[in-house]
Amino acid sequence: MRDPRYNILFEPVRIGPVTARNRFYQVPHCNGMGHAMPEAHAAMREMKAEGGWAVVSTEECEIHPSGDVSPYVEARLWDDQDIPALSLMCERVHAHGALAAIELTHNGPTSSNLYSREVAIAPSHQPLKYGYPHQARAMTLHDIREYRRWHRDAALRAKRAGFDIIYIYAAHDLSLAMHFLQSRRNKRTDEYGGTLENRVRLLRELIEDTKDAVGDKCAVAVRFATEEFQGADGVTESEAKEIVHLLADLPDLWDVNIAAWYMDSQTSRFAREGYQEPFTHWVKQITRKPVVGVGRFTSPDTMVSQIRRGVLDFIGAARPSIADPFLPKKIEEGRGDDIRECIGCNICVTGDMTITPIRCTQNPTMGEEWRKGWHPERIETKRSDRKVLIVGAGPSGLEAARALGQRGYEVHLAEADRELGGRVTREARLPGLAEWARVRDWRVSQINKMSNVAIYRENRLTADDILGFEAPRVVLATGCHWRRDGYGRTNGSGIAGLEGPNVFTPDDIMRGVVPEGPVLLFDDDYFYMGSVLAEVLRAAGREVIYVTPDDAVASWTAYTHEFRHIQKRLRKLGVRLVTSHNLKSFGPEGALLSCVYTDGTQQVPCASVLTITARLPNDELQQSLLASEAQWRDAGIETVTAIGDSLAPGLIAHAVYSGHRYAQEFDSEREGEVAFRRRGWRIAEGE
Amino acid sequence: MRDPRYNILFEPVRIGPVTARNRFYQVPHCNGMGHAMPEAHAAMREMKAEGGWAVVSTEECEIHPSGDVSPYVEARLWDDQDIPALSLMCERVHAHGALAAIELTHNGPTSSNLYSREVAIAPSHQPLKYGYPHQARAMTLHDIREYRRWHRDAALRAKRAGFDIIYIYAAHDLSLAMHFLQSRRNKRTDEYGGTLENRVRLLRELIEDTKDAVGDKCAVAVRFATEEFQGADGVTESEAKEIVHLLADLPDLWDVNIAAWYMDSQTSRFAREGYQEPFTHWVKQITRKPVVGVGRFTSPDTMVSQIRRGVLDFIGAARPSIADPFLPKKIEEGRGDDIRECIGCNICVTGDMTITPIRCTQNPTMGEEWRKGWHPERIETKRSDRKVLIVGAGPSGLEAARALGQRGYEVHLAEADRELGGRVTREARLPGLAEWARVRDWRVSQINKMSNVAIYRENRLTADDILGFEAPRVVLATGCHWRRDGYGRTNGSGIAGLEGPNVFTPDDIMRGVVPEGPVLLFDDDYFYMGSVLAEVLRAAGREVIYVTPDDAVASWTAYTHEFRHIQKRLRKLGVRLVTSHNLKSFGPEGALLSCVYTDGTQQVPCASVLTITARLPNDELQQSLLASEAQWRDAGIETVTAIGDSLAPGLIAHAVYSGHRYAQEFDSEREGEVAFRRRGWRIAEGE
Repeated sequence: MRDPRYNILFEPVRIGPVTARNRFYQVPHCNGMGHAMPEAHAAMREMKAEGGWAVVSTEECEIHPSGDVSPYVEARLWDDQDIPALSLMCERVHAHGALAAIELTHNGPTSSNLYSREVAIAPSHQPLKYGYPHQARAMTLHDIREYRRWHRDAALRAKRAGFDIIYIYAAHDLSLAMHFLQSRRNKRTDEYGGTLENRVRLLRELIEDTKDAVGDKCAVAVRFATEEFQGADGVTESEAKEIVHLLADLPDLWDVNIAAWYMDSQTSRFAREGYQEPFTHWVKQITRKPVVGVGRFTSPDTMVSQIRRGVLDFIGAARPSIADPFLPKKIEEGRGDDIRECIGCNICVTGDMTITPIRCTQNPTMGEEWRKGWHPERIETKRSDRKVLIVGAGPSGLEAARALGQRGYEVHLAEADRELGGRVTREARLPGLAEWARVRDWRVSQINKMSNVAIYRENRLTADDILGFEAPRVVLATGCHWRRDGYGRTNGSGIAGLEGPNVFTPDDIMRGVVPEGPVLLFDDDYFYMGSVLAEVLRAAGREVIYVTPDDAVASWTAYTHEFRHIQKRLRKLGVRLVTSHNLKSFGPEGALLSCVYTDGTQQVPCASVLTITARLPNDELQQSLLASEAQWRDAGIETVTAIGDSLAPGLIAHAVYSGHRYAQEFDSEREGEVAFRRRGWRIAEGE
Repeated sequence: MRDPRYNILFEPVRIGPVTARNRFYQVPHCNGMGHAMPEAHAAMREMKAEGGWAVVSTEECEIHPSGDVSPYVEARLWDDQDIPALSLMCERVHAHGALAAIELTHNGPTSSNLYSREVAIAPSHQPLKYGYPHQARAMTLHDIREYRRWHRDAALRAKRAGFDIIYIYAAHDLSLAMHFLQSRRNKRTDEYGGTLENRVRLLRELIEDTKDAVGDKCAVAVRFATEEFQGADGVTESEAKEIVHLLADLPDLWDVNIAAWYMDSQTSRFAREGYQEPFTHWVKQITRKPVVGVGRFTSPDTMVSQIRRGVLDFIGAARPSIADPFLPKKIEEGRGDDIRECIGCNICVTGDMTITPIRCTQNPTMGEEWRKGWHPERIETKRSDRKVLIVGAGPSGLEAARALGQRGYEVHLAEADRELGGRVTREARLPGLAEWARVRDWRVSQINKMSNVAIYRENRLTADDILGFEAPRVVLATGCHWRRDGYGRTNGSGIAGLEGPNVFTPDDIMRGVVPEGPVLLFDDDYFYMGSVLAEVLRAAGREVIYVTPDDAVASWTAYTHEFRHIQKRLRKLGVRLVTSHNLKSFGPEGALLSCVYTDGTQQVPCASVLTITARLPNDELQQSLLASEAQWRDAGIETVTAIGDSLAPGLIAHAVYSGHRYAQEFDSEREGEVAFRRRGWRIAEGE
């Protein structure tokens, strides 16, 4: 069944004392569940093992309370008390024939120790990276010995927990092993500072310590950043090459990427599949040990090319394994077109960044494996013969149709437009967002294989049409539209003058309207739409004045790692940025802005206003149906349910989740108010 | 023993069916432990009860997964599973004769539901307040009925848990009961929107529901914001008065304050004791029910005045009860001068805001009651007759001396200056920070009562002095100094040109130096020092150009609720703000700035530069002692320990904690690497 071209991806590869069954390697990735939710974490990792990944790793794992990254929730191995939670993961991963890896780290000055309240340590005195107003102290030689002991103890505990691969982490500017390499953080004048050889000393010792402690049974991997984009203050390619030369065959495996995290995990808006190759391809030329690298790989052909051209030995993946935990198995079984490809939106990253469980736009089961029992590939078969009519083939409607279809229900999906996909189709045409169309394409391709799901295009249904359809279950997935009145977080009574001409919303721009310039873009939304539309307007040659009441442009994109990329791009495009200002009114003379702190005003000449403030559900159909609720029974209608943006406007991720949840809960009784399992205090104790 | 003037504070007051033993009322306050750390939370609340507070309340308590405020950790009562954690608190509070209160809330559009993934609800469609890119949907009449049912169920569960007072929360813009009052959030056209009477309807129903459900045993309180400072978009005084008129005697108690939280909990830099009186004094004139209000009350005379003048019936407190859980008992026992007064720094707030346990500058035991067994008033008596020499009487030295003195050790505290207090004394002279001197004053007044602690002023010790002192334990608390070379988060190799003249640090300004203007203030620190020194310079008539590589000025002050106040003040003072720019170099022509995103540069004329980047410990004495380590044994020295800023520069809170920890751990063996109790998975189960 498998395409022989892909055979190379399924060769076993030896890593020190252990052997990976194939070349698919889930590199460490954060998930917002970590030590706080051991069952949820283990179940999520188990899915990767079941889906065919040869290696499944934890996120970074704290080895000591002085490297406490709270409030971020990662893995933790401070003492023996922390072993059981990680043993659980190993059991689950091993049950499917995969190797379990753990990424040990001490974050030094990139931890804040907010929970442990220990004093942070660093190569030299320095402020903590993440703003907490405390400094890390310079480590003494005694501290370095202690740190090595903690790392060794953690490796021994990791071995006891059952891990097969133990990492030394020297990447992302997030670990002492890397901080000692950096001249900006390491100002030491002893044998651990100064020359490169001195700065590498600690990393070498950690590798040797770990091999000595657990090397009999466990492989020892190094995760290493080959470029930091900071010039001489950071790790540069030339230094990185020297470092790999110095350590070449000492570790059992090199896991390489670029730093910091926002450069490593770039979105599809800013980087294409394989974007790390220019920075990491040389590693394999220096070491004889296997090399794993990443680049948001979702295409088996690209993967094969990486191996054949000698770039990598393992196809590393975080995001592609989140979007599709069964990616390897699908290639193995010749079902490559079933792969649910990562769209590169980084909604997964926002889980960790907001200290809550990971979610995924493409894979609505991500993070729900344990608490809701959702599986990315399997779903309960139908419990009745109830026919379902879904109105609207945007992301929620498509996912509801697909998942209900998978369950075996008879589904009718009516779409008003000729094209399917709704907002996905519209937004994927915006600059940089083309890959978002995969949300539509995967679902449509899956539905096309189902005989029990019918799609009707160019079919705008009325309430009467629906009453006449004789479907007991009606789902409204009619999307939403952007408000034109300025109502939003900042303006609870809207904005004066927007009822007049030359006022536009994102819907207008996505329809192809190009406002007359200069355009004042008013962003009260704070996520991606503002900067994307600024790009559209600049590409059309319009002068753009970007105004936001927030203190920075596109602040929420900090959680998707896009913030800095957006700042650079907007400045490069010559967009004029005005922060901390509100739009008070718009008229023939232009826009009146007011400072959100002083209320001081200024008049800004502009020909048009583009407002990005808030949205409203397209709920006309719902209102019509509610008005004729008395006729439902005769029409055989049991329930009418709004999902996705037509219930509450959100992200595409929310829409997909909403549609999936509808399908999962179809024909099942809800018990109580909490729709998922969770641990309770005392109840957990007594379990 | 008690001053009879204060008798009125100890009168019992009836609240519906329950009676408070006195007028001290710990109003609800967040703490960053909440449902995640039930034992730690219960032990912290217990301390207040033991300390004499008549009422001890939880923080806000979520009643339903659709009002999930994750990642913030508050109380939770979603279903019966959540009862035991709160029962534990009630047991502990009741054990000391206090009443336990719980603040039920559903945060509606001010929750983000990041953990529960439920769709948020609101009076009308609107974006979520805290930036998460999802909207809340407008509640139907069915939803309102459901919400009332959840609230009623939660009240019943709270009663089962043992609470005496059950809150309906309509304050801080953080609860549906308040959101329905606000015209900017409530655009309904049915009986719950439009007229004030309609907007109050839900609050009235919730009070009635709660009285009906639990009013037999429990008092029903309303927490209400009397002013929102948003004009007609928010609750104004005139509307608030009408609302209190409409509901006057319906609740058993009114707990009143101002909104939002950053206006309610203002720091001493921006508001004085009793600052809420102008906004809340009228409530008692409308209702016959007892009224509790806040104003960071620490003076018994002010408290008596509040009662006598008919402003309040209860002295509400959050921060004063954190700084001194035993405040009531101290007044009761005539020990008013033992009160550890809150300094109004809001470090307590930063716990909740950073999703980690509460800490307090004045009270280093805060948050450590359960996990370390620390008590704010009691400490283990000495285990040996070891003499202690402490060098430096700043916050860490003073606290170490005080706590070791309380343990009974012989302590010698040497201070180089004439004045005690170190940085506390220097910083308390800066504009707005006068109350910070309380950190020094309380400790000095406590030490002055101890015969076993000797203070030597104007005593700058050398290593030889110390070797000759014959103290087995030497503590170095010599503080730190600001760097002059520009090294910090942004500039890993310092800043060019700072070795020359006209370059200043905060230490210079605190010494009274006034640089020639215009002054370019370079803030790579991001907390309070930059804006405070800008005030100093403006007061001296200097032109100030405030440059920071950060995207906003003083970003970390968002966690102390000072951010908006600072933005307003700096603009009012005419400080020129330049964000997202780095200082590349300084010379006779002025400063060269570069954009952190584009590297584009600009020359800014200025006469002086004030750098606020990073600090270095004053460790000369430590280095001298280490150099003569061979002589320690003969000199009878067992250990030399650096604490506070001389170990690692931080906040005053860190220094106090460091000194206190030294005293707590003195003469005790440390076991393992984790210095506190915590719950582990599986271990917790089996306990």
